Amino acid sequence: MKRIKVGIINVTGYTGMELARLLYRHPRVKLASVTGRSAIGNKLGQIFPHLGDIDLIIQSEFEDVDLVFSAMPHKASAEEVVKALERGIKVMDLSADFRLKESAEYQLWYQVSHPAPELLGEAVYGLTELNRPQIASARLVANPGCYLIGAILALAPAVEQRIIAPDIVIDSKSGVSGAGRTLSLDTHFSEANENVSAYALDGHRHLPEMVQELQKLIPEPLSITFLPHLVPMTRGILTSCYAKLLRGETGREEVKQLYQEFYRGEPFVKIVDFAPGTKQTWGNNLCLIYPTIDLRTGRLIVISCLDNLVKGGAGQAIQNMNLMLGFPETAGLEMPAVYP
Amino acid sequence: MKRIKVGIINVTGYTGMELARLLYRHPRVKLASVTGRSAIGNKLGQIFPHLGDIDLIIQSEFEDVDLVFSAMPHKASAEEVVKALERGIKVMDLSADFRLKESAEYQLWYQVSHPAPELLGEAVYGLTELNRPQIASARLVANPGCYLIGAILALAPAVEQRIIAPDIVIDSKSGVSGAGRTLSLDTHFSEANENVSAYALDGHRHLPEMVQELQKLIPEPLSITFLPHLVPMTRGILTSCYAKLLRGETGREEVKQLYQEFYRGEPFVKIVDFAPGTKQTWGNNLCLIYPTIDLRTGRLIVISCLDNLVKGGAGQAIQNMNLMLGFPETAGLEMPAVYP
Amino acid sequence: MKRIKVGIINVTGYTGMELARLLYRHPRVKLASVTGRSAIGNKLGQIFPHLGDIDLIIQSEFEDVDLVFSAMPHKASAEEVVKALERGIKVMDLSADFRLKESAEYQLWYQVSHPAPELLGEAVYGLTELNRPQIASARLVANPGCYLIGAILALAPAVEQRIIAPDIVIDSKSGVSGAGRTLSLDTHFSEANENVSAYALDGHRHLPEMVQELQKLIPEPLSITFLPHLVPMTRGILTSCYAKLLRGETGREEVKQLYQEFYRGEPFVKIVDFAPGTKQTWGNNLCLIYPTIDLRTGRLIVISCLDNLVKGGAGQAIQNMNLMLGFPETAGLEMPAVYP
Amino acid sequence: MKRIKVGIINVTGYTGMELARLLYRHPRVKLASVTGRSAIGNKLGQIFPHLGDIDLIIQSEFEDVDLVFSAMPHKASAEEVVKALERGIKVMDLSADFRLKESAEYQLWYQVSHPAPELLGEAVYGLTELNRPQIASARLVANPGCYLIGAILALAPAVEQRIIAPDIVIDSKSGVSGAGRTLSLDTHFSEANENVSAYALDGHRHLPEMVQELQKLIPEPLSITFLPHLVPMTRGILTSCYAKLLRGETGREEVKQLYQEFYRGEPFVKIVDFAPGTKQTWGNNLCLIYPTIDLRTGRLIVISCLDNLVKGGAGQAIQNMNLMLGFPETAGLEMPAVYP
Repeated sequence: MKRIKVGIINVTGYTGMELARLLYRHPRVKLASVTGRSAIGNKLGQIFPHLGDIDLIIQSEFEDVDLVFSAMPHKASAEEVVKALERGIKVMDLSADFRLKESAEYQLWYQVSHPAPELLGEAVYGLTELNRPQIASARLVANPGCYLIGAILALAPAVEQRIIAPDIVIDSKSGVSGAGRTLSLDTHFSEANENVSAYALDGHRHLPEMVQELQKLIPEPLSITFLPHLVPMTRGILTSCYAKLLRGETGREEVKQLYQEFYRGEPFVKIVDFAPGTKQTWGNNLCLIYPTIDLRTGRLIVISCLDNLVKGGAGQAIQNMNLMLGFPETAGLEMPAVYP
Repeated sequence: MKRIKVGIINVTGYTGMELARLLYRHPRVKLASVTGRSAIGNKLGQIFPHLGDIDLIIQSEFEDVDLVFSAMPHKASAEEVVKALERGIKVMDLSADFRLKESAEYQLWYQVSHPAPELLGEAVYGLTELNRPQIASARLVANPGCYLIGAILALAPAVEQRIIAPDIVIDSKSGVSGAGRTLSLDTHFSEANENVSAYALDGHRHLPEMVQELQKLIPEPLSITFLPHLVPMTRGILTSCYAKLLRGETGREEVKQLYQEFYRGEPFVKIVDFAPGTKQTWGNNLCLIYPTIDLRTGRLIVISCLDNLVKGGAGQAIQNMNLMLGFPETAGLEMPAVYP
Repeated sequence: MKRIKVGIINVTGYTGMELARLLYRHPRVKLASVTGRSAIGNKLGQIFPHLGDIDLIIQSEFEDVDLVFSAMPHKASAEEVVKALERGIKVMDLSADFRLKESAEYQLWYQVSHPAPELLGEAVYGLTELNRPQIASARLVANPGCYLIGAILALAPAVEQRIIAPDIVIDSKSGVSGAGRTLSLDTHFSEANENVSAYALDGHRHLPEMVQELQKLIPEPLSITFLPHLVPMTRGILTSCYAKLLRGETGREEVKQLYQEFYRGEPFVKIVDFAPGTKQTWGNNLCLIYPTIDLRTGRLIVISCLDNLVKGGAGQAIQNMNLMLGFPETAGLEMPAVYP
Repeated sequence: MKRIKVGIINVTGYTGMELARLLYRHPRVKLASVTGRSAIGNKLGQIFPHLGDIDLIIQSEFEDVDLVFSAMPHKASAEEVVKALERGIKVMDLSADFRLKESAEYQLWYQVSHPAPELLGEAVYGLTELNRPQIASARLVANPGCYLIGAILALAPAVEQRIIAPDIVIDSKSGVSGAGRTLSLDTHFSEANENVSAYALDGHRHLPEMVQELQKLIPEPLSITFLPHLVPMTRGILTSCYAKLLRGETGREEVKQLYQEFYRGEPFVKIVDFAPGTKQTWGNNLCLIYPTIDLRTGRLIVISCLDNLVKGGAGQAIQNMNLMLGFPETAGLEMPAVYP
């Protein structure tokens, strides 16, 4: 079977690296071209020893491929996306550039005017479980933010089935790799180790995406507070969601069945019987979800966890790519988590 | 100045060890006697090398002292407390035995009948900032649970001043030492490392204390959901509290002033200008509090952090002891955090 | 292509779990039977959520398979090995029972008499890179200890080529999972975290294996000091080896070429151009080796690293199994490391 | 008792911060002035919240004090030292500038010509246990490198008493704070976490100090290989030293007594009965030493551990300051380690 050629724009960040790791073992595609903003001219394995078996030179421009992943930062990514589409290449954009539907909203949160607002209508939001058909036929998919996926998958069944009041608290705990490979004091080992802190208390950039996607499910306006926290581990996001049940008589078993029904057949969402730990998804593409009820207060609690670089990033993007290229959705993503 | 003699019952757990560390350097007391359930007959420094300078043998019964700390587990602690009081010794109990005022509530949560219900009326709940006068004159003080202190200090000003609706979510993240020195798979390094998980989803034993103490501040019934999480670090608890503001016009500055006013003069509570990290309290007795508002939803967010073994345990107990023995409240507790 | 059936005896430890993880994705075998000393009757995924896709019940006895892995502790393992061989089943033993050739040596280090000394002559020491032909035709292979592999692969070229004096220091740093899933205070998170210590200063049980296997390469008696250290991470062993060069004029480039020559064609040993980190092998089957010279003292320094649960355990065992069953040596083991 | 005024040049690195933490609680000195290369004009507590109780503004030049600590990087430090001495202020230099006696050696390792070679003769090497009298009367003391202290304290008794051959291997494992507060990819959390690696294989800058100081003890030339490793923790250095015993009959007890005798009366060096862990010295000024013998090979093994920021840095400097100012050597340094 001939493999389809794909490329990665900006392979030198953690998302790009993870795409390379996963695509290298993908049975249906061939990673044919990688670009970087640094390290141009080096073999991939010289910069990233764990990718030493991939025989590719980091280039400044990507070669002809059938689909390209952009792991560029926002704004710069849109410019690459436009160029790729003009060359007739499908694009999976992992930046924030095509996630928000309103360019004004984009400008508000990212403090730049949108470089390609004409594409906002066409771009499909790449949360596979909610937008499968649109993704399958898309030319441009915007891969969601890492916090998004755990939060929306945890809440979508309850919101769509209207079992909770529209007042929601989302408290997320993320490993440090979510902050990327760029150096900062917050991600300096001696500062981040043995430390937990909340951040982005004025509003995290993933919040407007959350509101946009959840709001699609019901007409009533949602009031969502989202607070991310940094915890001293490399990979993983655990999200705890809280909302009042509308009907007091809803029981735990009923909620569980509702969630199981909602995600029936989904290969990468599992409703589990226990409160999950992020480590159970280390390196794989699963999102584990545990819905329960605080019986004393009638509050729904939903815990989700995933690996921020896989289901929260590169794995989710490959799942979308599989749809766009007509492969089985699980191709290249079947590995169990590495535990412990 | 003559030092007052104090003792520690069950020095061999983390709370007992931490009491020994702090009392050893206390300028007004002399650690005169320590007991253990194991390691009896050994020098303290043989079992705990970091306490090698303390020249004490671990005994089965404590000698005559003026005040004794009990770091026994619940139920066993009450029995020691009774004996100490009968000997005319003041007691600082770090177990859960005298925290709840209702013995039925105790039985519900701890699954044993209370060993000394006749003392429940007399025991003072040892949250210094709220119960200072009662602690100063008490014979028996019940030191609060580690989660309690961060949660109640974060919420008390808002609850008492009635600026929030009585519907509260408390999401806590704790280091692993909070689970103590007893072995378990959850606290096995290879399982706990690189892992975050929620636990006690059916209700944590610190919840009834939280409700009891916060409910003292207002007559309206509070609806509190409390969810603890385990994060891969040794010390520290970060607590994030969420509740709707009652009046939309309350501003961030107003909230901050309310908190500063509430804690004016408190030596160990600091209202800070930034979202704090647990590491900023490593090894010291401070509780850092950052109140803010999610302006989009009108929700109060309060972040608190502390070292679970100091302000959340042994340090809080010594702060109470200082009051009970008439010392300056800060005696022996002035050390800056060890950072990084 | 029909898959060959294999089984795992004692799947409930970390080595057993890792075997299951890797065998599940192996293209040529089918994991058909797993046994445990605990959790019998449970589905594998109930006990180990990350293995939830493997549809197997933990049994007390293993079913008919073509080859079985024993991940039992020493002594108990030998008994299982005997039974399996009697049933005509090939065995890959991951315990220490068939590593040492002398039963007296075994008794000295393990304090029990050998349960099956009659098999010691037949058992092949499973260090693939040194004993490939014997492994390929063996009925019983003794998989090496985790420290062994990094140490011997680092030293074999220098010892066999006689470029160093026979006086060798081996200083190893291991992640905590090497101590297994059994609880102990040393592996309690709060004790192991933020801590480095040496252990087994009276002699580690992997030492006699090291001496036995290295001594095969030259007649001169070797004098080897081996000291293992515990470091606060889950996976990985880094080994630093030190020995005086015999001829002062040997240069770094010459040493590097000697190592490259020795391991030419080896799929899982890489001579690298930089001092490697354990994280570069997280979850995969590589051993990275960096030989260099301390030019001031004429001392050879060789650094090796690997994942103790993969190349240092389950991966090495599967590499051997591939040989025993006539598969390509790399089957099921081609995954890149998960980084960061 | 009047407190003596001291200052810190460049308080904004980890060594400077740690000096501030320890000096703030020192009973005999008053921290009167701190300077920084950044953050000038800010209150110390704004930049370092854990030092919030210290009421000092970070200045560009230090005020008049009796003694000043320089925590500047090498070369820049020498320039500050010269200025301070000219103002008649005693100096404790924590940089490398005055550690090596030969300016040519300095130039070789630091790649700059020495800014003040005329002071090299006068400067005293600040390893208290070996140079106590000279330090007490010095105007300028060069505080040793963090690796030095653990290595030399571990080896000095054996070298001086000539019980080992002059061929020594020193294998050190350091927490990440040893690399300072300056950002780098090696100390980026996601890179350093769950990783162990060796570095400086071409020679670490602390090596010439080690040779210089140990060589003072005997005339025979020493051949020392020193290899540092980075381990995923914040604080602590564990050093493992290896050398052949000259006389085979030397026993473990004899070695222990030799070490105990050598360090008799030393307040901050403890010969311990077990292999120590770095965590046992977290935050305090102890160096724990465990000498033993590999009986199979007749090799002396000495393990030492300390907190790199305390006994390996700021604590050692304050111990020296105490001598220089005529205080009890332990003043301000008596705190037990924070454990766990």
